[in-house]
Amino acid sequence: MDEIQINKHRKTQENKGRLLVKCPDKPGIVAVLSTFLYKHECNIIESSQYSSDPENGTFFIRIEYHGGQLAERAAQMESDFKEISLEHGMEYKFSYPAERIRSAIFVSRETHCLIELLWEWQNGDLDTDIVAVISNHETARPMVEALGIPYHYIPANKDIRKQVEEEQIRLMQQYDVDLLILARYMQILTPDFVAHFESRIINIHHSFLPAFIGAGPYERAYERGVKLIGATSHYVTNNLDEGPIIEQDVERVDHRDDVTELKKIGRKIERRVLARAVKWHLENRVIVEGNKTIVFH
Amino acid sequence: MDEIQINKHRKTQENKGRLLVKCPDKPGIVAVLSTFLYKHECNIIESSQYSSDPENGTFFIRIEYHGGQLAERAAQMESDFKEISLEHGMEYKFSYPAERIRSAIFVSRETHCLIELLWEWQNGDLDTDIVAVISNHETARPMVEALGIPYHYIPANKDIRKQVEEEQIRLMQQYDVDLLILARYMQILTPDFVAHFESRIINIHHSFLPAFIGAGPYERAYERGVKLIGATSHYVTNNLDEGPIIEQDVERVDHRDDVTELKKIGRKIERRVLARAVKWHLENRVIVEGNKTIVFH
Amino acid sequence: MDEIQINKHRKTQENKGRLLVKCPDKPGIVAVLSTFLYKHECNIIESSQYSSDPENGTFFIRIEYHGGQLAERAAQMESDFKEISLEHGMEYKFSYPAERIRSAIFVSRETHCLIELLWEWQNGDLDTDIVAVISNHETARPMVEALGIPYHYIPANKDIRKQVEEEQIRLMQQYDVDLLILARYMQILTPDFVAHFESRIINIHHSFLPAFIGAGPYERAYERGVKLIGATSHYVTNNLDEGPIIEQDVERVDHRDDVTELKKIGRKIERRVLARAVKWHLENRVIVEGNKTIVFH
Amino acid sequence: MDEIQINKHRKTQENKGRLLVKCPDKPGIVAVLSTFLYKHECNIIESSQYSSDPENGTFFIRIEYHGGQLAERAAQMESDFKEISLEHGMEYKFSYPAERIRSAIFVSRETHCLIELLWEWQNGDLDTDIVAVISNHETARPMVEALGIPYHYIPANKDIRKQVEEEQIRLMQQYDVDLLILARYMQILTPDFVAHFESRIINIHHSFLPAFIGAGPYERAYERGVKLIGATSHYVTNNLDEGPIIEQDVERVDHRDDVTELKKIGRKIERRVLARAVKWHLENRVIVEGNKTIVFH
Repeated sequence: MDEIQINKHRKTQENKGRLLVKCPDKPGIVAVLSTFLYKHECNIIESSQYSSDPENGTFFIRIEYHGGQLAERAAQMESDFKEISLEHGMEYKFSYPAERIRSAIFVSRETHCLIELLWEWQNGDLDTDIVAVISNHETARPMVEALGIPYHYIPANKDIRKQVEEEQIRLMQQYDVDLLILARYMQILTPDFVAHFESRIINIHHSFLPAFIGAGPYERAYERGVKLIGATSHYVTNNLDEGPIIEQDVERVDHRDDVTELKKIGRKIERRVLARAVKWHLENRVIVEGNKTIVFH
Repeated sequence: MDEIQINKHRKTQENKGRLLVKCPDKPGIVAVLSTFLYKHECNIIESSQYSSDPENGTFFIRIEYHGGQLAERAAQMESDFKEISLEHGMEYKFSYPAERIRSAIFVSRETHCLIELLWEWQNGDLDTDIVAVISNHETARPMVEALGIPYHYIPANKDIRKQVEEEQIRLMQQYDVDLLILARYMQILTPDFVAHFESRIINIHHSFLPAFIGAGPYERAYERGVKLIGATSHYVTNNLDEGPIIEQDVERVDHRDDVTELKKIGRKIERRVLARAVKWHLENRVIVEGNKTIVFH
Repeated sequence: MDEIQINKHRKTQENKGRLLVKCPDKPGIVAVLSTFLYKHECNIIESSQYSSDPENGTFFIRIEYHGGQLAERAAQMESDFKEISLEHGMEYKFSYPAERIRSAIFVSRETHCLIELLWEWQNGDLDTDIVAVISNHETARPMVEALGIPYHYIPANKDIRKQVEEEQIRLMQQYDVDLLILARYMQILTPDFVAHFESRIINIHHSFLPAFIGAGPYERAYERGVKLIGATSHYVTNNLDEGPIIEQDVERVDHRDDVTELKKIGRKIERRVLARAVKWHLENRVIVEGNKTIVFH
Repeated sequence: MDEIQINKHRKTQENKGRLLVKCPDKPGIVAVLSTFLYKHECNIIESSQYSSDPENGTFFIRIEYHGGQLAERAAQMESDFKEISLEHGMEYKFSYPAERIRSAIFVSRETHCLIELLWEWQNGDLDTDIVAVISNHETARPMVEALGIPYHYIPANKDIRKQVEEEQIRLMQQYDVDLLILARYMQILTPDFVAHFESRIINIHHSFLPAFIGAGPYERAYERGVKLIGATSHYVTNNLDEGPIIEQDVERVDHRDDVTELKKIGRKIERRVLARAVKWHLENRVIVEGNKTIVFH
C-alpha cells in the first residue's frame, strides 16, 4: 500500500479496539463485558468465545469493538476495567489496531517465506510495521532495502551464538520489536534469547509436526514414503519444535517426488502457513493456553 | 445410537437453548441479550455474530446457552423476552435441542445421499428424528425399514404432480414434519408445495452452482472440460437451483474421467455436502437473509 | 450392483489384462514390452512407468491392455513372456480383472470403514468378491448378512491370540482369500499371521503417520494441539504402523474439537482413505518397493 | 537461479527430448514409438497416454526420453520419424527442454500473478526465458527491470486497440515469443491478435468457470452467496472465457467476506492456478483437443 492507502486504513482502524479476556467460566461474564463496552459507547463488531468446559472451566473471549474518539478515551476505559477484572478474576489485554505492532523478520538464505510476508504486507494483509530484517546471509538485502526496510547482516554459527544473540537482542530493543518472525532462520536460539520474547516468536517448521521433529524433515519424509507433506507454524519455546501450534497445512506428493521436489512443494506450504499464522497473531486472534493455541477465526 | 445413548444425549441437551436474533445494528445489543440471559441464570456457551455493516447495518446473533431446569422455565423466559424484542426491533427465535426437529427425506432411485444421512444419524451426528422417507421408487425401502423408519412409496411423474404433492403434503402434516430433505429426489416441486415449507426444504444440486444450473450438470461439466466438479446444498425456492446456498464443495477430475466417472466422484461430494448442510440447519446455525445464508460455524 | 450389472461388467472386463514389471532400467524396455503385446494382438489402454533413477536405476511399469479372447490366450502369452523376462532380469506379474480378487474384511466394534467398503462395493467401485467378514464382535452381522456375505464371529483377546489366529488362518484358506482388509480391527496380529499374507494385508491407522504411531492417536493429537488430523492406509508388516504407506489424508480441526469430536472427524477420513487404498490395490496400481509404495494413479 | 545454476540445469536438460503424438488408436502404436526411440538409443524416462475410446478412438501420448548427444542427433531422428508418422496418420511434435521456450507476460495494474511467475521462475520452476513484460501501466516496471527483463509500457484502451495490438505484435515478433501469458491483463484482445498466437496465449480468469463468465466475477460471486470462489487458467480463443481450461482451483469463503475480501482471497488462487498452468504448458504436458485439454501430470 502506498502512503495514502496506509493513512486511509489507519483512519478506519483508529476507532477500533480489541479485548482479550481469560477467566473462570460462570454465567454473566458476557453480560459484564458487553455492558461495560455499551456504557463506554462502544459497539461490538466481532466476538468469539470458548470455554474449556461449561462446568467450572476456563472462559476465553475476544471482542472487537468500535467507538468514537477511542484513542482519547482508551486510557480511561482501561482504568475503569481494572475493578471489573479483579471482581471476576480476569486476565485481560486491550489492544488497538491503530497502534501498529512492530515486527522484525529473521531469515537465512532461503527467501520464499520472507517474500510472501513482504507481498502480503504490501498488499495490506499484514497489519504491522516491519521495522527490520536480520539475516546471517546477504541474499535478501536487495529486496528488503528496495522496500525501505533496514537490513542487518549478522553472520551466525554455533561457536559465536552468544555474541550473535546479544547483538540481535540489542537490535530488537533498539527497534522496539513486539513480534519476531523466523521466516526460515536456520539457527537454533538459546533459552536466554527465547525468554526475552515469550509467545512473541513465530517460527515455521518444514514438516507436519509432530511428524519429523528436528532436522532434515523432507529427507525423512522421503525415506518414510508419506503421501502428504506439510508445514507447521508455532510459537517458539525452549523445546525445539514443541511449541504451541498456530497453523498447519499439507500438500499431496507421490513416489516420483524426490527430496528436491519435496522441498519445492514444501516451500509453497511453508510460505502460506507462516503468512496465515502471522496474520492471525497480528489481529490478536491467537491465545496461548498451556502448550496449545486457541485461534479465533 | 441405541435407546440408552439417545436418552443420555437428550439429558445433556435438555438444559440447552439457542437464541437467534436479527435486528438493526447499534451499540448495546449484546449487552441487552447477555444481561437477559444472565438474569435468567443462563450461561452462554457459544456465541456468533455478524453485522452487515457496523454503521446502520443489520445485526445477526446466534447464542447457545445453558440453564438449570430450562424446560420448565423456557415459556416464562420467552414471554419476558417479548418486551425486549419490541424495544429493539428484533426478529428472533428460541429453539431447544431437546425438542428434536422432525425430518422427512425424499429420495428417488439413487440412495448415496440417503445412506450418508442415515449413517450420520445413527452415528449421533444429526440431531433430528427422521420420521419418514418418501420415494417414487422402492429401491431404498429395505435399508430404511431396517432402521424402523416408515417408508412411503409414491410413484411420481409430471402428469400426476398435483395429486402426488397433495399426498406428500398430507403425509408431511400427518408426521408433523419440520424439515424436508431432498436427498437426490429427481422430481420438480411446484410453487404451491414449496410455499408450504419456506426455508425448510434443503436440496442437493449436483454441480458447483451457479455453474451448470438445471439438468445434466455432469454431462455439461464433461463437455466444458472443467478440472473440478462440485455439489451445492441450498434451500429450495421457486427459482430452480437459485435458492440460498448453504454449502458447496468440489473434487479434482481430469481428462480421463468420462461422464460415468464424474458421476461417481460427484456422488461422494454430494453426500458430504448435503450431510453438512443438514447438520448445520439442525443446529440452527443457518440464517437465510435475502437470497444468501449466514452460517455460524 | 445387481446380477445383471455384474455380468455386464465382467463381460467388459474379460478381455482386459494387466502386466506389472520391475527390472533394471535400460533403453528398450518399453519397446520390448509393447512389441510383445502387439505381437499378441493386444492394445495398450493405460500405461504408467517410473524409474528410481534413469542411470542404472530400477524400472517399474504397469500396463493395462485389451485383447480379443484374452482368457483363452492368456496361458500361452504368459508362457511366451518367460523368455523375455529372463533376458531382461524382470520380476513380473500378469493379472486379469475378470479373475476377481477374493477379499476378507476384519472388523471390530466400529463399523464406519466396513460400511464405506460395502457401499463402494455395491456401487461397483471395488472390483472384488468380498467372501467373508470376520469380527471379534457381533455388531456388524446384520448389515453384512443382509448383503449375503458370510459373517464369522471369533471372540479375541491377547490371551487367546494364538488359537484365534489359527482359526482365522483356517478360514482365510477355506475362503481362498487374496486380500485381507483390516477395517478398524483393533487386535494386534502376530508375525506368524502377517507372514501368511505378505503385502496382502491393508490396514487403516487413525493418524497421519508417522505422527502418533501406536495407541490413542486422537487423544495424543488433542494433547499436542494439532490443527489437522489424518489417517493412513498401509500394508501391514511386523513393525507396528511402520509398513509401506498407500494413502493418507487429513481434515482441519480447531481448539473447540475435543477427543470425541476428533474421533468423529477422524472416522470420515479413515473411511475414505481405506476405500481409496483398497481400490488401488484391487486395480493392481500399488507396487511395494522396500518400505515404500509406488502408486500408479 | 544464478548463471551457474542455469548452466548446470541446461546441461542436465540438454540430452532430453519430448515427443507428443496424436493418431487413430489401434494396437501397436506404443510398440512403434518405443522401438523407434530404442533404435535411436534413447531411454524413455516418462510416458503418459490417453485414448478417447479404446475402440476406434483417438490416441494421445507424451513421451519424455533421454539420449546421449541428443542435440546433434535430433534432426536425423526427426527426419527418420516422418515415414512412421505418415504410415500411422500421426500428428506429432518433438520438443527439447534445452531449447528454452520464449515467454512474454502481459500485465495491467495488479501484479500478484506477475510476482508469482517471477518467483517461480527465479526458483527454477518455470523452464522458460522471460524475454519481455508488456503493460498498460508503469506499476510493475521496477520489479521487472530489477531482474534484467525488458519492460514495455504501452498505454491501452478500447479506442486505440488496433494500434496497440499492432505494436504488441511487432514486439512479440521482435522478441520471437513462443508463449504469451496474460497475468491479469485487463484488456480484451481482438480475434486478429488471438489468431497470431493460437493455443499459445494463457489467461487467468478470476472465477471458477463457467460460473461468472465475463466482468465482475467477485461482485457476482458475492451477490450469489457462494461458499467457494475460484480461478481458471485457460487458452485464449475468440470466445471470451470459453477457451480450453488448463487448471482450476478454489478456496472457501463465508458470509463475512465482502467483495474486497473475496478479491484478496481470489488473488491467492489466481496466482497459483496461473503458475501451474504455465508450468505444465512449458513442460509440454498440455494437449488441446477440441475445446478441452488433456493434461499429462
